[in-house]
Amino acid sequence: MGISIVLDVMGSDYGLTATVGGAAQISLENSNVQVILVGNGAEIQDALLEIPHNPANLQIVTAENCVFQEEKASSALKLKPNCSISVAARLVAEGKGDALVSAGNTGAVILSSVQYFERLEGVRRVGLAAVLPTERRRGLKKDPFALLMDVGATLHVEPRDLVTFALMGSVYSQIISSNDSPKVALLSNGAEETKGSPEVVEAHQLLKNEDAINFIGNVEGLDIPRGTADVIICEGFLGNVVLKLLEGITELVSDLAQDAYDKKWIWKVGLTMLSKELQKLKKLTDWKQYGGAPILGFDRVVIKAHGRSSARAIRNAIRVAQKAVEGELINKIQNGLQKIKE
Amino acid sequence: MGISIVLDVMGSDYGLTATVGGAAQISLENSNVQVILVGNGAEIQDALLEIPHNPANLQIVTAENCVFQEEKASSALKLKPNCSISVAARLVAEGKGDALVSAGNTGAVILSSVQYFERLEGVRRVGLAAVLPTERRRGLKKDPFALLMDVGATLHVEPRDLVTFALMGSVYSQIISSNDSPKVALLSNGAEETKGSPEVVEAHQLLKNEDAINFIGNVEGLDIPRGTADVIICEGFLGNVVLKLLEGITELVSDLAQDAYDKKWIWKVGLTMLSKELQKLKKLTDWKQYGGAPILGFDRVVIKAHGRSSARAIRNAIRVAQKAVEGELINKIQNGLQKIKE
Repeated sequence: MGISIVLDVMGSDYGLTATVGGAAQISLENSNVQVILVGNGAEIQDALLEIPHNPANLQIVTAENCVFQEEKASSALKLKPNCSISVAARLVAEGKGDALVSAGNTGAVILSSVQYFERLEGVRRVGLAAVLPTERRRGLKKDPFALLMDVGATLHVEPRDLVTFALMGSVYSQIISSNDSPKVALLSNGAEETKGSPEVVEAHQLLKNEDAINFIGNVEGLDIPRGTADVIICEGFLGNVVLKLLEGITELVSDLAQDAYDKKWIWKVGLTMLSKELQKLKKLTDWKQYGGAPILGFDRVVIKAHGRSSARAIRNAIRVAQKAVEGELINKIQNGLQKIKE
Repeated sequence: MGISIVLDVMGSDYGLTATVGGAAQISLENSNVQVILVGNGAEIQDALLEIPHNPANLQIVTAENCVFQEEKASSALKLKPNCSISVAARLVAEGKGDALVSAGNTGAVILSSVQYFERLEGVRRVGLAAVLPTERRRGLKKDPFALLMDVGATLHVEPRDLVTFALMGSVYSQIISSNDSPKVALLSNGAEETKGSPEVVEAHQLLKNEDAINFIGNVEGLDIPRGTADVIICEGFLGNVVLKLLEGITELVSDLAQDAYDKKWIWKVGLTMLSKELQKLKKLTDWKQYGGAPILGFDRVVIKAHGRSSARAIRNAIRVAQKAVEGELINKIQNGLQKIKE
């Protein structure tokens, strides 16, 4: 029996070339997945004309309009109740698709999910994760990634919400990274259990006593790219500030190099010799290309791809959604939540 | 009339060589500053025997013991009421010195200040600042530094506390960096005024209406090393996580380079050619050597030097304290606080 993934093709930074392009790649790879493309029907047809695809594995559902990246999600969704993300979420809510994938406005994806899906029992706050590549495990493991969560779905959290994030992130990592016992950590300003906000300090104590979670303690921001933990838990504002900092490190280093490059001939020679390796380093730290990250806590699989996703990244996001559905993510989270201590 | 700076010489990572060494440098430079060295009298004498100094500009006050870096400050201060930081703070409280400088346990410096000093009128929360070097203003300005505050003195803040931090940081920057109108920003996850925690969003609105503060809006983490703002305001837990991330970037980049270095001959050649420049970059991002950072909100000047301060950094911290006293930091903050809107 096949799986169908509902893909909102609108509102990504690189347009339908990327989103429809990713679905077209999937259509040629695997007949077990149907992709339902939701958006401007004529534009989708035009995009498909340009690229190889297998029409048997693609369906098109037309939506009137879409939410743009720069729009305020709440007002846009009120003005455009039949925009692509709303139509896509409704299809999933009605059981016409098994998972939702979008590279559009993040707020709109979260709010549409809130509107059409239910939160799982025991989930007070949903969490948006980011998938970040890690340095130190390169080569040791097929998936050298870490999950940082929450990166902005919720603002204020209780200690209990951080425990819920830990459980959900751990289950997700088990399924997607085929990791039996993912190492889960709290993001803090030091390893000691007394470090952090009162919520972090209390969550630390709760997590220490959870048998279902392989809690390794607190980590600092730079432990994320180092790969010290598989799942790193924090409150959404902190997570989003840290995510943007990590995303920008490559850019900063390039700036520094460029600055010196303009000044010294020795840099010119050295950097020219290093340029291929620097490109590799840049690619490794550019996690925009790594497919999607989950929004966890709903009764449906929701994968948010980066706004700047390439066709390859969209293809990867659809595969991640497929893996989550096949691995019974929702059931396993629900079962896990029932086991954690009240 | 001379100024006297009370220096807690104990509890720094590099011992009395660094702390007494810094005071000895000052004693030879300027007869307008007296440094009162507080700590183990015999050890201070021994340290002074080794290095050139002018005894006319140094005084020694003996304290029984000290708080170590790894101790929990609150219990250590209870056990050792006559430790060096307590004695030093008392001297300043009694008017026997004009400012307090310490490279010891940060918690102990803050708690001793709470014990012996008063909070200024209108200050609900004190703030610990960090002084960070900035890239983009190198050469344009004599002091290419930015002040990040709070980095851990307080955990939960109200919007009004963030405004107080902004005012205090701005006055400090005016005096220390001789900057007439320091650019003040809020640390957030985006430039838009709707971005951030509820406290940040509300503080943004309050700061927009403060004439006494040159508020430029929200900045992201990487804007700090870029030098987009002179004073960056945030809540203490977030500030400490971000500080540690920024402090570690150099180390991370070195790790990455080393990793590749081990593998490819082309890196070996390239990195060898770059090594001098990389050393400069490292020095620039190693702000442990830049002297002290203020703890703002008390009725006394308090400068916290990094635990890993060299003698040069201690010398710089004493100079910063002197500049703050001569520039009438406390009066100017008090006047500024009276002008900000209720």
